[in-house]
Parts: sequence; structure tokens; C-alpha cells
Amino acid sequence: MNALGKHLLLELKSCDKEVLDDISFLRGALLAAASECGATVLGESFHQFSPQGVSGVVVIAESHLFIHTWPEYGYAAADIFTCGNSVQPEKAVQVLLRKLGSKNHSVVEVRRGILDI
Amino acid sequence: MNALGKHLLLELKSCDKEVLDDISFLRGALLAAASECGATVLGESFHQFSPQGVSGVVVIAESHLFIHTWPEYGYAAADIFTCGNSVQPEKAVQVLLRKLGSKNHSVVEVRRGILDI
Repeated sequence: MNALGKHLLLELKSCDKEVLDDISFLRGALLAAASECGATVLGESFHQFSPQGVSGVVVIAESHLFIHTWPEYGYAAADIFTCGNSVQPEKAVQVLLRKLGSKNHSVVEVRRGILDI
Repeated sequence: MNALGKHLLLELKSCDKEVLDDISFLRGALLAAASECGATVLGESFHQFSPQGVSGVVVIAESHLFIHTWPEYGYAAADIFTCGNSVQPEKAVQVLLRKLGSKNHSVVEVRRGILDI
């Protein structure tokens, strides 16, 4: 079953709470994840919330990675959306798991763009 | 079942092919969708691909909206990720359906951050 895109939805629980509120660390983590999976970075947008929490996205030539964090719950939602065969999104998953220290996670894969072509 | 975020995955098929390659139009559509659902825009990043296709993201205080288009197939993948009760993401869905002229679409809702809190 061919699809244009592979979309990985990461539920990252029991993370290191300190890093979930560290915008600089999270930006580095998302860029490292993009690099590790072989993606080409085109743009980014990161925001720190008050009193806590960070949202960030890295747009890549192969689609995007984003993260939203809730430090108060030790939880982050992250997505890795890629298209094409030149990238290995599973490597990005491993980077995020390691850097955020998640002790309880799940990954759901959604195929996007299943077309009759 | 409470969740921190509501994530709508839109598969938009049989769209107007011309608008799928119009970065200015798509930026306007995503910003209109964000506005219509009551979101606060924090940042954006849009990119035109060669020979065709656009990727764009709008980061909102309530999470994000993104779109990736494949004009050659009349297809776009869009996501509307929101948290909190102050926004109505279904209104953003209607804006995107209308502006992209999709004649064949599906929407999958994923609850993100279902925690024992």
C-alpha cells in the first residue's frame, strides 16, 4: 500500500521535566533529530509559554517535525512527518526518546496520501 | 476521557490543483483557518518546492496548523492540532475544505496526551 507520507505520532510520557521547559535544548533536540534522519532543514519556529511549556516546529524538505511540551505533566507530543525514501524517520524517534528521557512512550504510524496512482 | 490536545488529521483529495501550488493563497488559507477557529498566531513558515508543492505551518498559542500539498495529485495533507477549550478546530476544517475545493476528504481525530491526572 503506497502512501506519499509517513507520519509518526509520538506520545512521550514520564520525560525529564526540566528539559521540557528548556526551549534551547528542545530546539537542539529537534534539529538533531532532523539531522540524524537525513532531512534537509528549511525553517523553524519555537515559542516559550508562560508559566511553562514549549512549542516548536522544524520544517524540512521532506515535511516537518514538531513538539509541544507540558513540563508540569512530564509529557510531550511530537510528530515526525516525512515523505520520500531518502530519510529514516525512525532515527529521529530514537533521538527524541533519548534526549527527552521518556520512560513511557508510544509511537503510532499513520500513512498519509494513499492515492489511486 | 480527557486529553491535553485534539489533533485532526485531514486527507484532502480531489482539490483545486492550482491553489495547491499557490504559496500565497495557502498561507492566507491557513491563517484564515487559524483566525476562524479563534486561535492566536505566534509564528509561521512556508516553503515553495520545485517543480511544485508547498509546505506551510502556522504555530498558534493553542498548538499548530500545517499543510503539505502535492498539486500533481490534487492532494493535500493538513493537520489541526489544538489544546484548551477556547478554540473550535472544526471551524478551521471547514475553512480549509472550502478554500482548497476538496471533493473527497476524510478527517481523523486523535486525542493527544491522555494522562492519569
